[in-house]
Amino acid sequence: MIQRYSRPEMTAIWSDENKYKIWLQIEILAARAQAELGVIPQSAVAALQAMGNLSVSRIEEIERETRHDVLAFLTHVAETVGEEARFLHQGMTSSDVLDTCLAVQLTQAADILLRDLEGLLVVLKRRALEHKETICIGRTHGVHGEPTSFGLKLLGHCAAFQRGRDRLIQARAEIATCKLSGAVGTYATIDPRVEAYVAKQLNLMPETVSTQVIPRDRHAAFFATLGIIAGSIENLATEIRHLQRTEVREVQEPFAQGQKGSSAMPHKRNPILSENLTGLARVVRAAVMPSLENIALWHERDISHSSVERMISPDATVTLDFALSRLSNLMDGLVIDPERMKANLENQGGLHFSQAVLLALTQAGLSREEAYKIVQKNAMQVWDEGGSLQERLSADDRVRQALPGEKLAELFDSGRYLRHVDAIFENTIDT
Amino acid sequence: MIQRYSRPEMTAIWSDENKYKIWLQIEILAARAQAELGVIPQSAVAALQAMGNLSVSRIEEIERETRHDVLAFLTHVAETVGEEARFLHQGMTSSDVLDTCLAVQLTQAADILLRDLEGLLVVLKRRALEHKETICIGRTHGVHGEPTSFGLKLLGHCAAFQRGRDRLIQARAEIATCKLSGAVGTYATIDPRVEAYVAKQLNLMPETVSTQVIPRDRHAAFFATLGIIAGSIENLATEIRHLQRTEVREVQEPFAQGQKGSSAMPHKRNPILSENLTGLARVVRAAVMPSLENIALWHERDISHSSVERMISPDATVTLDFALSRLSNLMDGLVIDPERMKANLENQGGLHFSQAVLLALTQAGLSREEAYKIVQKNAMQVWDEGGSLQERLSADDRVRQALPGEKLAELFDSGRYLRHVDAIFENTIDT
Amino acid sequence: MIQRYSRPEMTAIWSDENKYKIWLQIEILAARAQAELGVIPQSAVAALQAMGNLSVSRIEEIERETRHDVLAFLTHVAETVGEEARFLHQGMTSSDVLDTCLAVQLTQAADILLRDLEGLLVVLKRRALEHKETICIGRTHGVHGEPTSFGLKLLGHCAAFQRGRDRLIQARAEIATCKLSGAVGTYATIDPRVEAYVAKQLNLMPETVSTQVIPRDRHAAFFATLGIIAGSIENLATEIRHLQRTEVREVQEPFAQGQKGSSAMPHKRNPILSENLTGLARVVRAAVMPSLENIALWHERDISHSSVERMISPDATVTLDFALSRLSNLMDGLVIDPERMKANLENQGGLHFSQAVLLALTQAGLSREEAYKIVQKNAMQVWDEGGSLQERLSADDRVRQALPGEKLAELFDSGRYLRHVDAIFENTIDT
Amino acid sequence: MIQRYSRPEMTAIWSDENKYKIWLQIEILAARAQAELGVIPQSAVAALQAMGNLSVSRIEEIERETRHDVLAFLTHVAETVGEEARFLHQGMTSSDVLDTCLAVQLTQAADILLRDLEGLLVVLKRRALEHKETICIGRTHGVHGEPTSFGLKLLGHCAAFQRGRDRLIQARAEIATCKLSGAVGTYATIDPRVEAYVAKQLNLMPETVSTQVIPRDRHAAFFATLGIIAGSIENLATEIRHLQRTEVREVQEPFAQGQKGSSAMPHKRNPILSENLTGLARVVRAAVMPSLENIALWHERDISHSSVERMISPDATVTLDFALSRLSNLMDGLVIDPERMKANLENQGGLHFSQAVLLALTQAGLSREEAYKIVQKNAMQVWDEGGSLQERLSADDRVRQALPGEKLAELFDSGRYLRHVDAIFENTIDT
Repeated sequence: MIQRYSRPEMTAIWSDENKYKIWLQIEILAARAQAELGVIPQSAVAALQAMGNLSVSRIEEIERETRHDVLAFLTHVAETVGEEARFLHQGMTSSDVLDTCLAVQLTQAADILLRDLEGLLVVLKRRALEHKETICIGRTHGVHGEPTSFGLKLLGHCAAFQRGRDRLIQARAEIATCKLSGAVGTYATIDPRVEAYVAKQLNLMPETVSTQVIPRDRHAAFFATLGIIAGSIENLATEIRHLQRTEVREVQEPFAQGQKGSSAMPHKRNPILSENLTGLARVVRAAVMPSLENIALWHERDISHSSVERMISPDATVTLDFALSRLSNLMDGLVIDPERMKANLENQGGLHFSQAVLLALTQAGLSREEAYKIVQKNAMQVWDEGGSLQERLSADDRVRQALPGEKLAELFDSGRYLRHVDAIFENTIDT
Repeated sequence: MIQRYSRPEMTAIWSDENKYKIWLQIEILAARAQAELGVIPQSAVAALQAMGNLSVSRIEEIERETRHDVLAFLTHVAETVGEEARFLHQGMTSSDVLDTCLAVQLTQAADILLRDLEGLLVVLKRRALEHKETICIGRTHGVHGEPTSFGLKLLGHCAAFQRGRDRLIQARAEIATCKLSGAVGTYATIDPRVEAYVAKQLNLMPETVSTQVIPRDRHAAFFATLGIIAGSIENLATEIRHLQRTEVREVQEPFAQGQKGSSAMPHKRNPILSENLTGLARVVRAAVMPSLENIALWHERDISHSSVERMISPDATVTLDFALSRLSNLMDGLVIDPERMKANLENQGGLHFSQAVLLALTQAGLSREEAYKIVQKNAMQVWDEGGSLQERLSADDRVRQALPGEKLAELFDSGRYLRHVDAIFENTIDT
Repeated sequence: MIQRYSRPEMTAIWSDENKYKIWLQIEILAARAQAELGVIPQSAVAALQAMGNLSVSRIEEIERETRHDVLAFLTHVAETVGEEARFLHQGMTSSDVLDTCLAVQLTQAADILLRDLEGLLVVLKRRALEHKETICIGRTHGVHGEPTSFGLKLLGHCAAFQRGRDRLIQARAEIATCKLSGAVGTYATIDPRVEAYVAKQLNLMPETVSTQVIPRDRHAAFFATLGIIAGSIENLATEIRHLQRTEVREVQEPFAQGQKGSSAMPHKRNPILSENLTGLARVVRAAVMPSLENIALWHERDISHSSVERMISPDATVTLDFALSRLSNLMDGLVIDPERMKANLENQGGLHFSQAVLLALTQAGLSREEAYKIVQKNAMQVWDEGGSLQERLSADDRVRQALPGEKLAELFDSGRYLRHVDAIFENTIDT
Repeated sequence: MIQRYSRPEMTAIWSDENKYKIWLQIEILAARAQAELGVIPQSAVAALQAMGNLSVSRIEEIERETRHDVLAFLTHVAETVGEEARFLHQGMTSSDVLDTCLAVQLTQAADILLRDLEGLLVVLKRRALEHKETICIGRTHGVHGEPTSFGLKLLGHCAAFQRGRDRLIQARAEIATCKLSGAVGTYATIDPRVEAYVAKQLNLMPETVSTQVIPRDRHAAFFATLGIIAGSIENLATEIRHLQRTEVREVQEPFAQGQKGSSAMPHKRNPILSENLTGLARVVRAAVMPSLENIALWHERDISHSSVERMISPDATVTLDFALSRLSNLMDGLVIDPERMKANLENQGGLHFSQAVLLALTQAGLSREEAYKIVQKNAMQVWDEGGSLQERLSADDRVRQALPGEKLAELFDSGRYLRHVDAIFENTIDT
């Protein structure tokens, strides 16, 4: 996470202010439940609730001595609240606060990411619908295949981000657990009803079985989900990068007033946003492996996961938030050039009709092998020497015999390729 | 995937025989739908269905010339079926067969893995219930914390594998899609009803929006799920390895008749199965990153994902199947030593009661800070010099004052730590 | 590692036959040194050397009972050699054999890979020299930049593979260590001179400090090196894939007689070898992370690394060997189209001269900012509307003033861009 | 990179101040060379050298408009220097500045890391020498093996960090290249002598063949090297964590005055530094994969690598610097308990002598198989029931026969295990 690739709202989730605020909230909620159960006096709750603002700098000062962040926080609360503070944190262990807080932060982050995804989906759907009928060449292996529509291309990315959103909803639910089960997860020193109360107030679920910590497979599932979304970002970014090549130029990233493409070559308009997204995807993905390595903790926990999460939690969420937002803006302002798409499509002598001819020939009675050879031979000549496939084929006796009169010409109609596009759109766009 | 870490049923899924069988099944189903739609004659379907067995070696022979596996397969079918074969594969592209086949194979693999997980869960639950009341020390940072029960330890792993199973059910559903949408996903040459029919017969869902291929975020989600399960395996394996240390010896892996531990040191009984599982987890996890890199394909597809999947699909599923089975057997035969657990627990002078005393002292009116200092001082003496925490504390005036009479002694009761274990079990074990 | 992406010589290194052969060689060499030191009788050496062939199947049979591969091997040797076999493996531990054998296998593998790299370098140099003067457009961000030569492109890849080779020589040296230091690396039961002797005979270095095993940072360095070479393969493969795009078509992969590009689209010539190499690079790279995770072993060793290495050692070396060989063949037969390169270069209205003009304008006294704006404005018009940059600029008063007469025209000479190419070649190609 | 795990010197390398300072230095050096060649006037150099301090905030302000960092920098220099600034950056492209700057920063970072490693080696050697004769049990699979010395354990880690240092020296050399070859690496607009001059002044080598950028396999080799060092850190940290277990307690991390181990359990002394190092190792390692993915750039470059490097360069170097320093301090203050080591060694009834007996029995004429069975049987009884191996063996007739009189007793001498330790030290510690 660096400022250049950050947005303030997501960054704020990972601030010390937010963290200590959540810690205090957890402690107050736990105290309330404890008071309700008669474990601590109501006066302690009142004292806690009446306390003023936390001082991040004071907590840091104490931590430099104790070398333990939760104890530093508790000491600071104690010196603010006074005598009643001794009822605070009753029967709890540091991880009760830390892990529940992380769950709150990750769900907060997930909510922003889900909003980002929804925003991206709105843009993608709009652009997809806009270009539902915009014919362009579909490319496999970077080589012209058959026609498709630019809207359908975008619709595929839409569907991928819908899946990403659905997986994130799932991963958010997985990570949204609360743990106040004490030192090794037995509730020996704290009634399970405290956890249940705090969980409910924070919109979390109580953890099924905790040790000292919430099990880390939940976090791994969360970061893996971010990594997959990053993969889908890279996929769309790669498409844009390809389509903006000099030789292709079917789309162009929005180019701001005053922006400069190259310090050396003033004519250049480079797809730098998409390239940047490709890099950001690598960074988000890099969080997956350490999160998987975090799962195997020793016995009822070791603290190896902690430093990892202090870094990858902000890194992955902030970077992904930035990337999703950048992608939205990019797709929103993407300059799409239907005429260029048409020109590129028509540039190859009608080679993309080859399969249609192949099918018609087999339907007309030729063996698949024979039909394939005829079409390939003619197609290869067009590929190597130029010219029109239709003309070459109509000069081929075997073709003329199999597809006499108008039959061959009818095949050479690009519009036919889009006839199911409407149906695909209907099946895909959720409402 | 190597034979040493393979089981035949999973390996068979990835055999050429199975692959060609599924290909043929897809072609026949597609032909049926096409015949139903009147695109090809019913006689072609009949001819296909009547054909004998496929010859793997003949297909390989043809592939050496054509360098294209699906075309080699089709050529072989053609030479077996005869003239009617020209109606085969009508309007389809190779990936219609390949990707749908991979979906079938991955769901077959997922079904075995789900069965493995169910089997493992049965074992884990049994052992967990067996040792629900077996008290042992909970360890954090490798250091004695507070008592827990060995059954509760296992229950936590149970819960993790339940989550693994649920995620795999989800990932299986995600991967279970069928694609027969032609060259670039437009259904230009094949009616969408063919895909719908084939999908239904194969218990798959039609892919929402395909390009030439099924989008690879689905596969990434699948392999990431396997990686997370591998992490949970490593987690339990690490627990076993720790507990079998010479100094701990609370459990022991089953040691077969005739097995030898070391070529040099004949007394050794090593937790080699768990160590092996730790390594296998790394291998399964290694499939995650390439599967994430596979998401970004060029335009309507490039074929870079294919070689990756030819390797990681068998590697990850076969290795995970083997690992789950090995873990089941290991846990089934695990020799658990409750007496040793008790001895280890009691070996530390009752240090694990320190928090209970801390709480009682604060409840009795001491500030948290003061109580902490008293307990820590005495605990440290026990840690450094041995002796009993209870004795030391009862010699401390401040403690005697705060916890007079039986009050201190009552705290030193390990049984209290397990009083919520029943409830946790009830919340966890699904029925 | 799968057969499809394997070559026999590399595969043979990882066969059981080769492994047992090396084990026996190590045992015989150790026995010789032991006999020389008077620890065991010379007759034992003679008996060992006289023994016939090992039976892989018999060893496997014994292993099924003992569950320990080295003990099974020793038992088999014993039953073959007879009574003298008791002097075998004196003072050694299994890992003395296993780790030294792995070192031999990895150096064997490295030797093949080094030969592959040399072979690839020969091809690359030849093609680079062939096209040293072949002018083509250099592209940054996928967008035309300035002219370069196709040979220079290849020369850059040459230099990368030279670095790869040099790193592999280094990594080979690192992995080439011998360990016969007994159970925990103290030589308590075996004289260090035995290790020294065996090492020398096998062209290895004695391990500096071993535990029961050779330290795994050596192996990690080895696999990381393979991963970086894989990255360089992907880099060149990506270049080919781009240049074979329909709109670019500057190169074409060799297309064998009889080969088929697509089951649906017979005209297609796809860069499938390069795409395949891109995927194989991902697979080789996937070995890096588990090899890094293997470094941290417990105390004097745990066996978690073993299963990983049983898989990634053949996987990474066999796949990389195949990939290097495939890349060599591909580059050897690559069809390069200088005319198309020239056409693409000239297709953009001379935009690639923009920097030359920018420089000339500043040299003529304009400020950098002003010159940049003039050139960018004209370049953008050419980019958006077509036409020739030279013509547009000569119509611009400020340019005419700054670069009067022939001065502007002189700048529009592509040949100037290659004037340092010879010197770069001289600095790069090692002899 | 987060402040908690950062040290100021390394962090400063990645500050904007340092970056712009290096940029300016490169521009001035290039200008000097250009002036020497007569391309620009000496007055321009003088003006540049006379300019005052750069304003980071002003550059940022300009960048917000131009969206191009190097152009923003150049504009700021121009507005500071005045008219002569037009001679700045002559014939250069942004990457000439950026990539050369990154090379300078990475070598600066490498120098700190090398100093860290030297510092760590000093500590490790001192502690290793201090405990060269401190006998302790060697453990394989977490199970007691044979005796070793604690100094020898540390010496092994020494050797690993020596290798790490040597690899880093190599990787530093690889990354230390300078590139001023213009837009696509042809030197078309800048004389190669400029690059040669700048390289020399910055203690870099001119890049062999560059495109617009320095090839990224160099950077991958650098980050992979950091990842391997991280693995060695994890390895040593894991050793400490194990040895500090409650049941083992052979070492203890330094525990500062005032430090608190647990908010709930005041007696706990946890190996949190080592656990933290384990986590930090994961983070450093996480930079390896994206750096490998950065190698394959499109044609003469795309900018996807840039965002990755903006993050992983500081992340990996700052975190590794912090980790190395933390490890040094930890090892420096590590509390080592030779008595506890001795006690643990002697606790197992002399099982660790089993191999010595096995060898003596075979030397005395028993077959290896028979000897193994005898020793294993007795060893297993000791393992399961306690008692002394020596006593049990002396009660075994076959042993008494083979090893009569003092012969058995002589084997039970731990000192024998350390007799080669001196020699290993001599071979390892470099001077």
